[in-house]
Amino acid sequence: MLGKRVVSAAIGIIILVVVLTSNKIFINIGVAVISVLALHELFCAAGNMQNTSLVSLAFISSVIMAFSNFMEQKFIMPMIYGYIILLFVIILIKHNTIKLSHIAITCFSTVYISYFFSHIVFTRYLPEGNILIWMIFLGAWTTDTFAFFVGTSMGKRKLWPEISPKKTVEGALGGIIGCGLSFLLFGYLIHYFGNHNVHYGSLFVLGLACSIVSQLGDLSASIIKRQYNIKDFGRIMPGHGGVLDRFDSIVFVAPLVYYFTMNFSIIS
Amino acid sequence: MLGKRVVSAAIGIIILVVVLTSNKIFINIGVAVISVLALHELFCAAGNMQNTSLVSLAFISSVIMAFSNFMEQKFIMPMIYGYIILLFVIILIKHNTIKLSHIAITCFSTVYISYFFSHIVFTRYLPEGNILIWMIFLGAWTTDTFAFFVGTSMGKRKLWPEISPKKTVEGALGGIIGCGLSFLLFGYLIHYFGNHNVHYGSLFVLGLACSIVSQLGDLSASIIKRQYNIKDFGRIMPGHGGVLDRFDSIVFVAPLVYYFTMNFSIIS
Repeated sequence: MLGKRVVSAAIGIIILVVVLTSNKIFINIGVAVISVLALHELFCAAGNMQNTSLVSLAFISSVIMAFSNFMEQKFIMPMIYGYIILLFVIILIKHNTIKLSHIAITCFSTVYISYFFSHIVFTRYLPEGNILIWMIFLGAWTTDTFAFFVGTSMGKRKLWPEISPKKTVEGALGGIIGCGLSFLLFGYLIHYFGNHNVHYGSLFVLGLACSIVSQLGDLSASIIKRQYNIKDFGRIMPGHGGVLDRFDSIVFVAPLVYYFTMNFSIIS
Repeated sequence: MLGKRVVSAAIGIIILVVVLTSNKIFINIGVAVISVLALHELFCAAGNMQNTSLVSLAFISSVIMAFSNFMEQKFIMPMIYGYIILLFVIILIKHNTIKLSHIAITCFSTVYISYFFSHIVFTRYLPEGNILIWMIFLGAWTTDTFAFFVGTSMGKRKLWPEISPKKTVEGALGGIIGCGLSFLLFGYLIHYFGNHNVHYGSLFVLGLACSIVSQLGDLSASIIKRQYNIKDFGRIMPGHGGVLDRFDSIVFVAPLVYYFTMNFSIIS
């Protein structure tokens, strides 16, 4: 199991590094793919897959959102409007089978998954986006790693046993501090190799904040799984579960990195 | 009943005219009030009112949205992010009573009601917004009136009997044409009294489009009521039902007027 998990992670990381270092357009394509896969997993969990018209609309919107950086800003809001109107047109046409709760779940999932994921793209297209984008993955996955090792080695107090029985307070704190320190190390490396000025204070704060929302993302995915009585969202990544199991933290971290770097200077 | 309906409508129209012609800030206040009232009605219908933390968050967000024109554009997207994160924090804390469907309904309702309504405010703060804002109400209510009179006098073919048994195809077409003509008349009046150049072609197209989405808004509210087995959303306006019964079309028309006038020249 551990072997499968490691191989699966290694393949995932190789794909990620190739995508992140290739032409920017591959980020758009990658985000479109993971958005649709994650939406599919969430819809399966929520029993929303039988509503093919809703599902198709959500998938199309996800793909559009993953490429929305090419769109003029002024078209984004009318698109959201059009999306909601179309959801209502679908409920009108299929009112015997589709309920308000179905269109609400569809709408919410596209915000939570597709809109949040699209911040990976927005971040990549910022000036210095080729550096900033790494923080999204660093924020999510160093938190996981530090929380795991600190938790297993010195975890005593349970964090939230009804939601995620294995997590400990010590692990959570280890994740936060470890993530903050990773961000500092990352800053040092880009300063050293890239000759950038790095604002370590902002970077450290961003690291801590990323870790907190990363853990919230993880817990949120756990509570969804628990409410729908499933263990994993899927089986696409052997040993890791579905896309949403692996990207549950990324979903929450991506917008934070984007908004933070838009408002505070991190590298220059 | 008809008397009560007329008195109620007259009081409503007087309040509306006073608000629309007063200081702009009263539009913000008015939109905040109708958003919260309409949200309250929708939550009552959907059985979402017992989740006080969700309801409070939705109400606060509605009020913020009604005043969001005072905010810098760059804070809007982070606010949406913060809103979704808070919804997840609430589901985590109250996971025994609050399900994903509850937060989905809450999120969807704030988009459908509060976000859509806030376009009344955005329209009012445009240059010439004091004129443009009238089109929102004209679009919704002339459609209603023409559809009613054309439908009752010459309506034969049922439009969508399972959703709204009284509506006819003739009424719907009458509403569309009547609304288009009202927009032309409105254009003529503002040209005559206000000395504005009016682009009648665009205005007529906007009138037709407003009428279509207005009727969609009406049907959408009907299907929601039908699915939750209620006749009206409320009783705040004697003879008319609740706020959402009277504003179901406005909700859909307001964003259309805003986006259309942002992209096409109507008056100059």
